Amino acid sequence: MKGYVFHGAGQSAWEEVPDPAIKEPTDAIVRVRAVTICGTDLHILKGDVPEVPPGTVLGHEAVGEIVETGSDVRTVRPGDQVLVSCISACGRCAHCRRTMYGQCRGGGGWILGHLIDGTQAEYVRVPHADLSVHPLPAAMDSKEAVLLADIFPTSYEVGVLNGHVRPGDTVAVVGAGPIGLAAIATARLFTPERIVAVDLAPSRLEAARKLGADAVADAREAPEQLIADLTDGLGADVVIEAVGVPESFELCTRMVRPGGHVANVGVHGKPATLHLEDLWIKNITITTGLVDTYSTPTLLRMAAAGRLPTAQLVTHTFPLDHMEEAYDVFARAGDTGALKVVLGEEQHDAVAVRAV
Amino acid sequence: MKGYVFHGAGQSAWEEVPDPAIKEPTDAIVRVRAVTICGTDLHILKGDVPEVPPGTVLGHEAVGEIVETGSDVRTVRPGDQVLVSCISACGRCAHCRRTMYGQCRGGGGWILGHLIDGTQAEYVRVPHADLSVHPLPAAMDSKEAVLLADIFPTSYEVGVLNGHVRPGDTVAVVGAGPIGLAAIATARLFTPERIVAVDLAPSRLEAARKLGADAVADAREAPEQLIADLTDGLGADVVIEAVGVPESFELCTRMVRPGGHVANVGVHGKPATLHLEDLWIKNITITTGLVDTYSTPTLLRMAAAGRLPTAQLVTHTFPLDHMEEAYDVFARAGDTGALKVVLGEEQHDAVAVRAV
Repeated sequence: MKGYVFHGAGQSAWEEVPDPAIKEPTDAIVRVRAVTICGTDLHILKGDVPEVPPGTVLGHEAVGEIVETGSDVRTVRPGDQVLVSCISACGRCAHCRRTMYGQCRGGGGWILGHLIDGTQAEYVRVPHADLSVHPLPAAMDSKEAVLLADIFPTSYEVGVLNGHVRPGDTVAVVGAGPIGLAAIATARLFTPERIVAVDLAPSRLEAARKLGADAVADAREAPEQLIADLTDGLGADVVIEAVGVPESFELCTRMVRPGGHVANVGVHGKPATLHLEDLWIKNITITTGLVDTYSTPTLLRMAAAGRLPTAQLVTHTFPLDHMEEAYDVFARAGDTGALKVVLGEEQHDAVAVRAV
Repeated sequence: MKGYVFHGAGQSAWEEVPDPAIKEPTDAIVRVRAVTICGTDLHILKGDVPEVPPGTVLGHEAVGEIVETGSDVRTVRPGDQVLVSCISACGRCAHCRRTMYGQCRGGGGWILGHLIDGTQAEYVRVPHADLSVHPLPAAMDSKEAVLLADIFPTSYEVGVLNGHVRPGDTVAVVGAGPIGLAAIATARLFTPERIVAVDLAPSRLEAARKLGADAVADAREAPEQLIADLTDGLGADVVIEAVGVPESFELCTRMVRPGGHVANVGVHGKPATLHLEDLWIKNITITTGLVDTYSTPTLLRMAAAGRLPTAQLVTHTFPLDHMEEAYDVFARAGDTGALKVVLGEEQHDAVAVRAV
């Protein structure tokens, strides 16, 4: 089969690789129907994620059809249409028993396209299939469903739920890339009073408005002052960090009200400064997290019912074998306006740009 | 009357000051029967709390008798025996309406011995008396009750409740001074599996054992390894920071398990480094806070019923006019073994040392 292989920092190719095969009785083999590219994949390509072995097929998000299952797989069978979650879960370890699947100690967690071959290929082996794939509601478009493999549960669990967004809240979302936009979309499920999006790129702030931000602010123009003006000087009830750099995190801690929440979603490579000399007295809560995907079944039902704006995040679609072109368009998002790019058998337009 | 007056960094004295008088209809005047000294008072004396005006009577913890009330005070009357809380609360502002009394925007919060004259005197004016003093249960010893003005609600609310201590948890308490010891005592109310105390001083670790710590560790000897050994490599469910320096906070973030809580109680003067490059993926929750004292009525009932080991924290007692000697003993805690020192009319021994 063909797959997109990481060969060490700066080197990768769509090339012939061995077909995956069942290794454990809990494995399933999935034929990939739709796949997407994550910002984390770009980090891997740069060499920022050193634990990824050269030779690994990348990708941790897919929709596909089960074509084979190991003898101990009970909940899916060949022919089933499934979402392949970015998180695999053994279901038996101390963390899985607390629904902390992202922290699975039994050989799961984020492994696809990280520690083992991933989804950017024609077929993928999914370990612990019972808890690591989700049957698709019949009506779901694969291009939309694939956004529920990672970004929607990540934004919802690690941003909106960890941040305890409540009706009437002022919510600030720092970073209006795909994760920040999905955070805006899922924060709206709790009917906050207002959502303020903060970014550097006018095109992303425009996308944020279309997804439901009530106000937008340039990150360089003291967005903490806008928040203060909107909230009688108090600050935001919930601030969601969706960038992953120290400056952004530190901005979040200046925007939150006393008693409020900062929910970090961004993937960080460096330490940040925590201004405890100001914050010790402010009764704030800071949360971090890798997604657990415990919300994925719920989000699938909601998306199938048309209650999540998944389609609005897909700006470009490609056939699967245009992987290198798709990576190029996604990596140059500042020029191309890419949010999520989706590849797969149903995506026949070479480059179909949809304005958000 | 006499009071202990701050005259700028390094200068203070027990001296004649004007008697306090009712200024607002919501004020009460309290005759002080017992008072204690807080580590924060030492910070003020060093000049670390620049907003304290020279000429201010220090102290924010007391037990006493109401001698006069303003026309709008409804819940106490002259003759009532009360606890004077470290937090005053208007009860009407946006923060008080969320029981965030510590953040009161209506002229309350931590004001006594900070922005206005405090409790280390023969009499004190308490603003917003209805929500800022608590009637004492009849049976309570003033020496024990005064520990509920600040340290017990602080440790309980900001440490134990913010940290979400639950039955069966492994709880680490970093810093075994009075606040850390009160955190150990109140963590036990939730029947954790074990409490591990971390400090530099053997005498404080010994005190921690007597208050209920199941294990103790020298902060210099890799306490994170002890925690890992005790928890199958996971880490502590809850880590309570009760020191207030960057090194201590950073140690806490190395001791917490994935999915666990770090509850910061320490008063910090400098920023800390938050290692988001390790922590972003760990699903941790960090909380900060000034006490709100919403728990004080509950703690008073429990202490009156003998269910809090308040007396064990009082190592030295003095008559009220031995204030300067009491400050000296408290400031030299490393030599004197002082935990809490209590002064007042019922404390007739000049220096009564009680081993913890």
